[in-house]
Amino acid sequence: MIPRPYHLFLGDVADEPHAKTAFGIRDWLPDEAVGQARLPGCGVDLGLDELTPAEAVARGARSMLIGVAPVGGQLPPAWVPSLLAALEAGLDLVSGLHTRLADIPELAAAAARLDRRLHDVRRPDREFPVASGRKRSGKRLLTVGTDCALGKKYAALAIARALRAAGIAADFRATGQTGIMIAGQGVAIDAVVADFIAGAAETLSPDAADDHWDVIEGQGALFHPAYAGVTLGLLHGSQPDALVLCHDPLRTTVSAYPDYPLPSLATAMERYVEAARLTNPAARFVGVSFNTSRMQPQAAADLMAQVEAEHGLPCFDPLRSDLGALVERVRAL
Amino acid sequence: MIPRPYHLFLGDVADEPHAKTAFGIRDWLPDEAVGQARLPGCGVDLGLDELTPAEAVARGARSMLIGVAPVGGQLPPAWVPSLLAALEAGLDLVSGLHTRLADIPELAAAAARLDRRLHDVRRPDREFPVASGRKRSGKRLLTVGTDCALGKKYAALAIARALRAAGIAADFRATGQTGIMIAGQGVAIDAVVADFIAGAAETLSPDAADDHWDVIEGQGALFHPAYAGVTLGLLHGSQPDALVLCHDPLRTTVSAYPDYPLPSLATAMERYVEAARLTNPAARFVGVSFNTSRMQPQAAADLMAQVEAEHGLPCFDPLRSDLGALVERVRAL
Repeated sequence: MIPRPYHLFLGDVADEPHAKTAFGIRDWLPDEAVGQARLPGCGVDLGLDELTPAEAVARGARSMLIGVAPVGGQLPPAWVPSLLAALEAGLDLVSGLHTRLADIPELAAAAARLDRRLHDVRRPDREFPVASGRKRSGKRLLTVGTDCALGKKYAALAIARALRAAGIAADFRATGQTGIMIAGQGVAIDAVVADFIAGAAETLSPDAADDHWDVIEGQGALFHPAYAGVTLGLLHGSQPDALVLCHDPLRTTVSAYPDYPLPSLATAMERYVEAARLTNPAARFVGVSFNTSRMQPQAAADLMAQVEAEHGLPCFDPLRSDLGALVERVRAL
Repeated sequence: MIPRPYHLFLGDVADEPHAKTAFGIRDWLPDEAVGQARLPGCGVDLGLDELTPAEAVARGARSMLIGVAPVGGQLPPAWVPSLLAALEAGLDLVSGLHTRLADIPELAAAAARLDRRLHDVRRPDREFPVASGRKRSGKRLLTVGTDCALGKKYAALAIARALRAAGIAADFRATGQTGIMIAGQGVAIDAVVADFIAGAAETLSPDAADDHWDVIEGQGALFHPAYAGVTLGLLHGSQPDALVLCHDPLRTTVSAYPDYPLPSLATAMERYVEAARLTNPAARFVGVSFNTSRMQPQAAADLMAQVEAEHGLPCFDPLRSDLGALVERVRAL
């Protein structure tokens, strides 16, 4: 587990699209974000108190989390003094950047001297077994998508929260960097060696009580020319009893692959169920999650009503809708 | 490229199942295997001349290849003196073991001092891009299977050889350790980081002349609970025009996964074509390869005649059959 609460470091990034991780932490872990730290030129504001590392420690912070992605994915040298100051103040560091904190000599030396830990969540810090294919106890829900980056993490977080609110034991299981920072643990599934994708997914959601739900963050899409292998391995290792399809109604082609059209919702569901049934013959869809952030409310409501009628599945936007119908569908399984 | 010809090191392994790599080299590269080297207690004989490293060098050898897999996959310390002697004699070393040669201090030091290279083919020695999904020039054939370890490499080798014999430009593209040792290059696709499986496959078979065929060694199976992710990423990145299904008629369940039945040939073909058409809408099957090594010849012939009639595809055993019908099917594409 990564020690929390977090102090959120925003560096000098110019705009919100580069600070998705920080906003994810603020939105999903409001009680675990004690403050923000910014460098001159930073154009992002989370609305949290501006704190020095020492002030953050005084408010309970245990780690400083790099909540932004600099252009190019490398750690700018200008950020290093702030990171050193956080270590000196008694904070661990948490990063999802390509550059490993442990590969920056000053940080590695300071962490060793101060007995602090550097959490590089982009790379798994352990090895995984080859998948066994053995059915595990407990229940699992996996969010899957018609494409990458359209709300699978937010859907899983919202579902786990809604299940717990309804008295159903549930854990969010993170498979990407921001998810791991929110959960405090997890596996960056796309960074696992190919042979062990399904094995890592099996490890991520171990045997559990029969009425416990693991709600697993999906990755990629079966229809993505680069990432479908990750998606399929995660699907097989997760052995989901329940699937939720995530879709962005305004997207018609795979993001950044304009020659690749998105499948229809019906085709997507058919292919996911077909693949999922290899390791769990009971796999079925229980809902459809829409990212309606760029739609008019009425258009979004009309679309969801239409898909509900057509497929007989509860439809929702994880950030806007009540998830009651989905929760009842899950409870009935 | 790994320097050849090879001197084949067999260590002290007891039996032929642990020497599959050495037999693969002997069978597919007879002109590139100058001799064998064995330690006391070795129970394997390739029928090659027993040579010291110096004798092997005198016959042209440029690398000594570890052609056996010791139990556990680790390099026995008793082998190290033989490997050092090979380096001293002027040979590179080639290994597909879990233990990296470069991680054995005596070998690393000797290789550095003598300016020799240690080829650890199990791990890619480079990074790969995310797949682009862009259609490449040239033609590609990929062998796929109903399971792992049932002849996809031998089928691809036999097809590449038959195409060349028929005057068609063709290259075997290796995706596993033994294949890489045979081809002298390739990518151990199951050792690539998950995000880059399809990208590595794209790199493996680059743009080529319009009438050139890359014959790509398949890995795993879409129906394998542990390895399907590797299979799908390789399939997408390979963008095959032609698929050959490989099957062992005596196998009914996934090897080592008795709860997982193999699909029918019809189901397997349907699922592979469905997946392949994401990146190449023209993908189709052109033949079925059977491992009939444990069948009576008449039973094998009857089976192949039946499958040919049912599916309208040339059937063959890569080690026993004439591949003329398959070659003509490929030529017609």
